[in-house]
Amino acid sequence: MTPTTSSTPSSAPSAEATPAVALVDCDVHPTMTPPMVMERLSARWRRHLERFGRRTPVITEIYPRARNAGMRADSWPEDGVPGSDPELARRQLLDEWDVDFAVLNGLNGQDCFDPPGFAAELNRAINDWLWEDWMEPDGRWLGAIAVPHDYPELAVEEIERRVGEKRWVQVIFPASTQEPLGSRKYWSIYEAAAARGLPVAVHSGGYDTHLGAGWPSFYVEEHQAFSTVVQRQLVSLVCGGVFAAIPDLKIVMTEGGVAWSVALRWALDEAWSVLREEVPELERAPSEYIRDHVWFTTQPIEEPDDPDDFVRTVERGRLADRLLFATDYPHWDFDSPKQALPRGLAKETRARIFAGNACELYGLAA
Amino acid sequence: MTPTTSSTPSSAPSAEATPAVALVDCDVHPTMTPPMVMERLSARWRRHLERFGRRTPVITEIYPRARNAGMRADSWPEDGVPGSDPELARRQLLDEWDVDFAVLNGLNGQDCFDPPGFAAELNRAINDWLWEDWMEPDGRWLGAIAVPHDYPELAVEEIERRVGEKRWVQVIFPASTQEPLGSRKYWSIYEAAAARGLPVAVHSGGYDTHLGAGWPSFYVEEHQAFSTVVQRQLVSLVCGGVFAAIPDLKIVMTEGGVAWSVALRWALDEAWSVLREEVPELERAPSEYIRDHVWFTTQPIEEPDDPDDFVRTVERGRLADRLLFATDYPHWDFDSPKQALPRGLAKETRARIFAGNACELYGLAA
Repeated sequence: MTPTTSSTPSSAPSAEATPAVALVDCDVHPTMTPPMVMERLSARWRRHLERFGRRTPVITEIYPRARNAGMRADSWPEDGVPGSDPELARRQLLDEWDVDFAVLNGLNGQDCFDPPGFAAELNRAINDWLWEDWMEPDGRWLGAIAVPHDYPELAVEEIERRVGEKRWVQVIFPASTQEPLGSRKYWSIYEAAAARGLPVAVHSGGYDTHLGAGWPSFYVEEHQAFSTVVQRQLVSLVCGGVFAAIPDLKIVMTEGGVAWSVALRWALDEAWSVLREEVPELERAPSEYIRDHVWFTTQPIEEPDDPDDFVRTVERGRLADRLLFATDYPHWDFDSPKQALPRGLAKETRARIFAGNACELYGLAA
Repeated sequence: MTPTTSSTPSSAPSAEATPAVALVDCDVHPTMTPPMVMERLSARWRRHLERFGRRTPVITEIYPRARNAGMRADSWPEDGVPGSDPELARRQLLDEWDVDFAVLNGLNGQDCFDPPGFAAELNRAINDWLWEDWMEPDGRWLGAIAVPHDYPELAVEEIERRVGEKRWVQVIFPASTQEPLGSRKYWSIYEAAAARGLPVAVHSGGYDTHLGAGWPSFYVEEHQAFSTVVQRQLVSLVCGGVFAAIPDLKIVMTEGGVAWSVALRWALDEAWSVLREEVPELERAPSEYIRDHVWFTTQPIEEPDDPDDFVRTVERGRLADRLLFATDYPHWDFDSPKQALPRGLAKETRARIFAGNACELYGLAA
């Protein structure tokens, strides 16, 4: 695991140079059931959970029942919930699609205001479970370190705790946080991740689904509007000077779309050109920071009426080396490798998106 | 139901003049079970609920399991949830405590961003249920009209729909709303209520438990901090000019405490005295608007180490004719009439709090 530096992506080994790795899935969701969580908590927090429950507000039915509660209809194990059985996930994802590596983005612990001691234990439990039940038994699973992100010193402790274990390839944040991601509150976490060569993945969702303009009434509304939160967080990261201050930080915008990033770069550069005196910490145009520091996963990818419009977006937007294939298994809107990308993409670009970019970013080159 | 005008509370009939009514409970919570809601929805929204579920974020376990999920241990009917069986509530509350009247504050429908059509039907269903299953069969039940408050034109329609029915004595809002309660968004609802002589009750809670300074980690924290939301809403109502614009509006602050109101009046008057040019719509001191327009329920009442401190607060704060007794049945922190008030309160004040004030406010004088 020796990540390449972000400033030399074009000199890194191309997809062709690593033919042994043909498919990397950068967004898979393992989920612990409540009894599994209970088993791994200390007596203090187990008792707290039993007697007082959780305090994080959630949408009781975040996914429509009419879409199998958000899950692939075939993804329920006999006992448990989709994503709770590593054996079933192995069969349905790794084996069926011949996936070389898949990144486990566990979302169980992305709570912002359960007590910090509980948040720390919950995230530790998720990582222990991923390590013991998924990553150790099967070398194809890569891990995202779940952290109690809104308690930064505890999040840094959790990152440090994983130093002795292999194949942790990123740290994961929800897109909805207590403060915008540019806030200095989170910098110590970014610094800890960057120091270990770990990108930080920002995944759509989190306890707060406000979406920036009132609360959504419909799932279809939320499904699309997650991308506005991701955009807002990206602007916060750039304008907050995070990339200027932490040159080794890499961000993976996950499940928030990508086509918008082209227009965002245009607009943000234009605003910066007339307002740069306000943010003298930015030594380069915003688009350059985004270009050097930010990757995007494909699922759910934008699908224009003419698929070639997306091809042009990738080419003209210089996104070919910044896109990472993802299925979102076991969710209902799973993208299979066969259907995820428009046919008009160049062969080399497809290879990069399916594996090459992830190999470079996560240091997977054989 | 001929409410007295708020400007002449001292000339209204005293508690002694209505000896036939000795106990009015101003905060009781009937609750529909999900199947009961389903039964009363149209096919369009029943199908929506079945296939897409609710979109309002909630704390899954808002009450501690260790406090019987927030309910009196004896309040579960054989089939259903506490507050769903009018017969059990009649026995445990009206009969056991010899309650003359009790106000039904249904909270099922206080959702801010489920689709408006659904919010309208849900609140209509609650009111239909209260009318048919509670109020018509037993004349001691009084009703609070549940409204889709964040869709004002639909809320006004619901108030109008109840014109032909008797014993609706107030309109109910949650304390946590999309906009502060002083916002003009809500004025049409206040006007509709005031025009019918109905107070508006503002009840602690609502989908958004942000409490004004981050999200609470603990129930004990939230239980107390609800009063800060109520305070903030009261300031918004005053400063937003609501009472100045709608002189007949009466507000019942429910389950948010009361002792704080004395200090709040001092502070707000002081601020107004040096800033009144900012809010020229206020023709009188804030404390005068509060004095004339605002009532408070007792449960959960503040309990100082020396109970006489509370007695002095009531006396010096001129609250004797503004306090309304409440049990909060069927919740775990039920206040029985025997224990709710400190013994040091004057007999006449006790009589006012237990019944006289409610008789005046709700026009219950025999």
